[in-house]
Amino acid sequence: MSLRRTSLVIRHLRNLPRLYCSSSNATTPPAPTSTSITNLTIANKQQLYITDAVTPGSVFFLPHGTRIFNKLITFMKTQQRQYGFEEVITPLIYRKTLWEKSGHWENYKDDMFRVDGADLEKEAYGLKPMNCPGHCIIFDRLDRSYAELPLRLSDFSSLHRNESSGSLSGLTRVRRFHQDDGHIFCSKDQIKAEITASLKMINEVYSIFKIPGYKLLLSTRPESYIGELSEWNDAEAVLKEVLESTGQEWTINEGDGAFYGPKIDVILKDHTGKEHQAATIQLDFQLPHRFNLKYNSKENGVQLQPIMIHRAVFGSLERFLAILIDHFNGVWPFWLSPRQALIVPVSSNHLEFAKTVKAQLNNDASNAIHDYKFHIDIETRNETVGNKIKEAIKKGYTYIIMIGDKEVESGKIALRKATERKTENLSVEEVRQRFIDLEKSYE
Amino acid sequence: MSLRRTSLVIRHLRNLPRLYCSSSNATTPPAPTSTSITNLTIANKQQLYITDAVTPGSVFFLPHGTRIFNKLITFMKTQQRQYGFEEVITPLIYRKTLWEKSGHWENYKDDMFRVDGADLEKEAYGLKPMNCPGHCIIFDRLDRSYAELPLRLSDFSSLHRNESSGSLSGLTRVRRFHQDDGHIFCSKDQIKAEITASLKMINEVYSIFKIPGYKLLLSTRPESYIGELSEWNDAEAVLKEVLESTGQEWTINEGDGAFYGPKIDVILKDHTGKEHQAATIQLDFQLPHRFNLKYNSKENGVQLQPIMIHRAVFGSLERFLAILIDHFNGVWPFWLSPRQALIVPVSSNHLEFAKTVKAQLNNDASNAIHDYKFHIDIETRNETVGNKIKEAIKKGYTYIIMIGDKEVESGKIALRKATERKTENLSVEEVRQRFIDLEKSYE
Repeated sequence: MSLRRTSLVIRHLRNLPRLYCSSSNATTPPAPTSTSITNLTIANKQQLYITDAVTPGSVFFLPHGTRIFNKLITFMKTQQRQYGFEEVITPLIYRKTLWEKSGHWENYKDDMFRVDGADLEKEAYGLKPMNCPGHCIIFDRLDRSYAELPLRLSDFSSLHRNESSGSLSGLTRVRRFHQDDGHIFCSKDQIKAEITASLKMINEVYSIFKIPGYKLLLSTRPESYIGELSEWNDAEAVLKEVLESTGQEWTINEGDGAFYGPKIDVILKDHTGKEHQAATIQLDFQLPHRFNLKYNSKENGVQLQPIMIHRAVFGSLERFLAILIDHFNGVWPFWLSPRQALIVPVSSNHLEFAKTVKAQLNNDASNAIHDYKFHIDIETRNETVGNKIKEAIKKGYTYIIMIGDKEVESGKIALRKATERKTENLSVEEVRQRFIDLEKSYE
Repeated sequence: MSLRRTSLVIRHLRNLPRLYCSSSNATTPPAPTSTSITNLTIANKQQLYITDAVTPGSVFFLPHGTRIFNKLITFMKTQQRQYGFEEVITPLIYRKTLWEKSGHWENYKDDMFRVDGADLEKEAYGLKPMNCPGHCIIFDRLDRSYAELPLRLSDFSSLHRNESSGSLSGLTRVRRFHQDDGHIFCSKDQIKAEITASLKMINEVYSIFKIPGYKLLLSTRPESYIGELSEWNDAEAVLKEVLESTGQEWTINEGDGAFYGPKIDVILKDHTGKEHQAATIQLDFQLPHRFNLKYNSKENGVQLQPIMIHRAVFGSLERFLAILIDHFNGVWPFWLSPRQALIVPVSSNHLEFAKTVKAQLNNDASNAIHDYKFHIDIETRNETVGNKIKEAIKKGYTYIIMIGDKEVESGKIALRKATERKTENLSVEEVRQRFIDLEKSYE
C-alpha cells in the first residue's frame, strides 16, 4: 500500500463519524477506488467527459456523457415518483450560521469549500457538501401535520467536497458530484415501511441495470453516539427485521454506524467481482433535533419530532456512471446508449433517403415533450462500407442501419446490432417501434 | 427614485461593458424590476418557492415550484434539440487563472463569489457567473474541424453573481440563477443562418407561452471596442439584415453593444404591458481570441478562429418564471400546471374508486421514462363538496374531477375546469387522452 493510499484511508476514517448523508463514508470494503484504466479508455474513446487543471476534481461532461448522465437522472425521477418522492431545488451556498446549526462547521469545515463575496456582509458562506440542511429548512418553514408524513424530498443538486488533490481520480474521487439524494421525514412507526420501500426500490433499480449481486451491510451504534439507548435499540431492531424480510444476504458491522443513527450500506459487485459502495439508507435522530423540527400530531396541540432518513440509490451519480462504464464495458444497452444508431448510406446517392429515415425514426414533425427521440447519426464520410461499419463499432454505436439501392426501392431498411452480424429488413415504422419498446423495457 | 434604486442603476451601468453572456445587462428599458406583490402572493399561495436569510438571493424551489421549473427546462431541451443543440454539464468552480484568461478577474471580480478550500493549493477559485469560459475549454480540448461547425452547446448550470443584498428581490434579482444558456461556435459565413434560427426559436417559444408581443433591440458598436472596424461593420450589417427579414418591429440602440460585439436583446411585454428583458443574442469576437480557439478549415493546414454567439431564449429561468407567474396570473395552462387535477370524492365511499381513477389516469402500471404522468391529487378531507371545490380553485388546480355514486356506477367521471362551471362526463381513458393532448399541444 503506497503512502498516498494510506493517507487516503486515514482521511476516510477521519471523516466517518462526521458525515451526514454521505455515500462515501464506509470504512469497510470497498476502500476508495481509483478510476480503472479501462474506464478512462472507454470514456476517452466515446468522448464522455474530460477534466482540466483549472478545476481539479470537477468533471466536464461532453455531449455524449451528458446524454447518459441525463438519462440516469430522468430514469431515477421516474422511479422516485412511483415511491412518492417530490423533487425540490435548493441553494448551493449557505451562511456559516446554517453549518454551525447542522454541525458541519464544527466537524466538517476542512472538507468544505468556503465562499466569500465582496460585499458588506461579513459572514462567510459554505458551498454545500450535502443537501440535508437545506431540506430541514424546507420542512421547518411550513406548519407540518402528521397527515403530510412521510414527506419524501429528493434533490439532484451539485455537491462539493474539498477532497485532497492527490486523491482525485476520474469519476470515482471527485470534488464536485451529484447524488440521487432523498430525505424522508417520518414518524417512528413509519420507519419500517420506509426502509422496506427503500430496499425494494434499490433492488428494482439494480435489477434494471442487471447488476449481478450486492451485499447489504448493517452498521450499528458506535461507542460514541448521541440520543437515547432505547431509541438506538428500537431502530436497530427494525432495521434487522427489515433486512431479514428481504431474504437477501446481509452482514452486520458492529459499532460502525454514524454517531447520529444506524445505517444500511449497499455494496455492489460489478461483473469483474469488484466491489463498490453505492446506495445508502441512514437513520438520523440528530438533524431533526438540531433544527428543532416538529409536526402536529393527531393529538390536538401535541407536537412531535420527525425522524429523518437519508437515502440514495445510485449514491454519487458520477461514481455510479463509472461503475456502469466498467459493468457494460462500454457496450451500452440501447436505452442508455449515447449513440443509439448510425445510419450508413452505401453511397452519396442514398444520403437523402437516410435523412428522411432519420427524421421519421425521431418523429421530427413533433416537438412534444414526451415524444420518443433517439440519438441517431448519419455517416456522411466518403469511406468504404466496411470501414464505416468498423468505425461505428469502435465509436460504440448500438445499432447500424444500412441504406443502399435495395433499401431505397423497398422502403425497408437493414437493421443490425453493431456487435452482431445478423441483419433484419424492417420498415421505418417497425424500427421506430422496436426502439420505443427497447426504451420502455430498459433494454 | 429612491437612493437604493439609483445605486442599482449605477451598478447596472457599471457592469454593462464587462459582461459576457448576460441577460441582465441592458441599460435601456427595463430597469431592474423588483418582484411584484401579485407575484409574491401567488408564489406563497401556491407554495412555489421560499427564500431564507441563511442564503439571501438563492431560491428554495418547493415541490410545486420545482414542477414548473423542471417542466420549463424539459420543454427547452426539447426545443433546443430541434435546433441542433447538444447539452453539456460543466463545473461550477474554476481557478483564478481561467477567470484571468477570460477577462472576468480583471473586470468582473467584485461581482463574483470567491471560493477557497483548506488544502495546499494556494490559488483561489471563482464560482462561475457564466458558462462561456467552460464551453471554450470544451471547444478547445478536441481537435475541431470545419465539418463540426456550427457547434451548439447548451448548459443549464447554476450561476452565481454577487448582487448587493439591497437589490435582491424574489425571483427577479437573485444571486443564484439558471439560464437556458447556449453558445454557438461557428464560421463567419454561418453567422447569418445562426442568428436567423435563434430569432425563429425565440419567436416559436414565446408563441407557445402566448406572450402578446416583444421588441427587438439591436445594440451597436460602443465607443470603446475591441477587434477590427470592418468586422464590426460586417457583423452589424448581418444583424440588421436578419432583423429586417423577420418582419417584426425592431429598434436600434446606437453604441450600446458590448465591447466584444454587437447584440440583439429581446424585450417582452406581459399582459399588463410591463416590459422585461428575456432573450439575448450576442456576437463575440473576443473570447475565441482570448482562448485562442481554432478549427481546421477546408483548406489543408489552415486554421481559423470561430465566432462565438452567446444566446438564451428564456434568459434567467428564475426571471422568466416570475414573468410567467404575472403573465398567467397564477392560472397555469394545463401542461405547465403544478396541480393539474384534483379528484374530489363526494363521500368517503367514493375514495377507493378515486384511487383507481388516479392510477389509471397516470398509467401507474408503467414506469417507462416517456410515459405521460400527471400531477393529480385526491381530496381526502372531510368537508362539504362546495368547500372542497372552493379550496381547489384557491390552490390553483387546473381541473376538478368529481366522483359520486353516479360516476362509480357509470364508470364515467365528471370533469370540469376549475375556473369554469361546465362539466363533461367522460370515461377515464377519454380524460387521460384529453390530458395527453393538452400536454402535446402545450395548452
